[in-house]
Amino acid sequence: MTIEVRDPEYETRTRENFLSQGFMHTLGAEMSSLGPGRCELTVKFNDALAQQHGFFHGGVVASLADVSGGYAAFSLLPADRTNVTVEFKLSLLSPGRGASLRASAVVLKSGRTLTICRSDVFAISDDGSPTLCATALATYMAIDRS
Amino acid sequence: MTIEVRDPEYETRTRENFLSQGFMHTLGAEMSSLGPGRCELTVKFNDALAQQHGFFHGGVVASLADVSGGYAAFSLLPADRTNVTVEFKLSLLSPGRGASLRASAVVLKSGRTLTICRSDVFAISDDGSPTLCATALATYMAIDRS
Amino acid sequence: MTIEVRDPEYETRTRENFLSQGFMHTLGAEMSSLGPGRCELTVKFNDALAQQHGFFHGGVVASLADVSGGYAAFSLLPADRTNVTVEFKLSLLSPGRGASLRASAVVLKSGRTLTICRSDVFAISDDGSPTLCATALATYMAIDRS
Amino acid sequence: MTIEVRDPEYETRTRENFLSQGFMHTLGAEMSSLGPGRCELTVKFNDALAQQHGFFHGGVVASLADVSGGYAAFSLLPADRTNVTVEFKLSLLSPGRGASLRASAVVLKSGRTLTICRSDVFAISDDGSPTLCATALATYMAIDRS
Repeated sequence: MTIEVRDPEYETRTRENFLSQGFMHTLGAEMSSLGPGRCELTVKFNDALAQQHGFFHGGVVASLADVSGGYAAFSLLPADRTNVTVEFKLSLLSPGRGASLRASAVVLKSGRTLTICRSDVFAISDDGSPTLCATALATYMAIDRS
Repeated sequence: MTIEVRDPEYETRTRENFLSQGFMHTLGAEMSSLGPGRCELTVKFNDALAQQHGFFHGGVVASLADVSGGYAAFSLLPADRTNVTVEFKLSLLSPGRGASLRASAVVLKSGRTLTICRSDVFAISDDGSPTLCATALATYMAIDRS
Repeated sequence: MTIEVRDPEYETRTRENFLSQGFMHTLGAEMSSLGPGRCELTVKFNDALAQQHGFFHGGVVASLADVSGGYAAFSLLPADRTNVTVEFKLSLLSPGRGASLRASAVVLKSGRTLTICRSDVFAISDDGSPTLCATALATYMAIDRS
Repeated sequence: MTIEVRDPEYETRTRENFLSQGFMHTLGAEMSSLGPGRCELTVKFNDALAQQHGFFHGGVVASLADVSGGYAAFSLLPADRTNVTVEFKLSLLSPGRGASLRASAVVLKSGRTLTICRSDVFAISDDGSPTLCATALATYMAIDRS
């Protein structure tokens, strides 16, 4: 697949959009890496993000998977467009146990209207070693900026 | 499908488990209704749960869908079992715009090991009228309580 | 949700389109019912559609789920549009054991570009009683007829 | 992830199981490659597998994705176990246009009960060049051989 950057200022635009999401602040999520058609988000563990066994909650894993894919797709949009999530599917492979969570998304198909992304979510242990804990497939739709 | 309650104390056990999830506190989620094989969660809107347009974030919608299904499944487990989410798929039908969000889940298939649930998520307007904003299919696996 | 019929001749157009699919002939699928935003397909069992235990193959179940949703969506399109499947997710609830299979799809959300459908697939026993054997969520995109 | 082969005769067992599926004969599917935790299926195009535009039908794409993942999972089972598909999600990235279709599946997570696979489906042109036309995530459950 050819990746075409339609807005040379995509990085500024993408990072600003990310910062405007209250829920990403609530999770403490940071955009640790961004490139054309790829995005990485990172979240440090704290009890406010836990499920009943003290691991990262599946909802946090799902949110990172969705949002990392959304910004991977967003990075390829023209400047006058934004996008919304149409749907995503998440498979949880192992518990979200670790010091942090890292979601790494890539665009699989970039169409005029729809973008399909894959996002892999890794639990990062105290010593920095990653374990794949979830993988997602997601669809995003480009819409005009209102 | 026949719904079989394997633990007569399921309601206490299910509600206690729900309260032990830090992330549900973070979202401000309440278990507004519970029955054998069905569960309803409710969340009031606040900016900490928003995406960039001021609506409920898709990650919140996904979390409620996943967790409501998880407890619908949990309600049918024997007392010595708990469950984990295997996977879920969420289709977003309309923006999560409203004063609150309500996720309503039912068990479609209750097996010994796996339970399949559907969860519908409604955005509730100020005057209380619901709009279906998302629907999910999810799979949960029963495991022994550790 | 309001269902709007954009082409009064939708039934003829939908049934003709269905008949043009070679693979539907291969499966022996019939469009047993059609209405605005809903479609039902039926297939009789034969060994050419079986998996290793002599039940309907999951691929047949998936095909019926996808196609029934596609025509439920198609029925609401204007006459100059057709559609393609963007994605679908299928949960298999019980074996496809029976004399026939019936997929019943409804439109959950009909947008200008995207349509979201649910399809329930039932295994029909010799005496005509149905068992829900699978359920699907699917997304379709409208495109211009070429 | 560590791949553990539990049955040294897995290849014979897996290929025999595949050949017992009537629907795979109907599609003309061949198991073009098999290894521990990975499986590749190939189908040649013919009109009996077509949708309305003369490309491979999405149901064929879905069937190959599901079955290739199923046998990737099956290859890692002990000799006294078989498996069933729990669910799968398929994203269609481009039309299934070509001389043949090749589905290539790998195990992402191999548990005692559940196996999670990814399957990529490629449309192969007359000159042999592949185009990714679909990708799937699927869950399989091991059960005792009856």
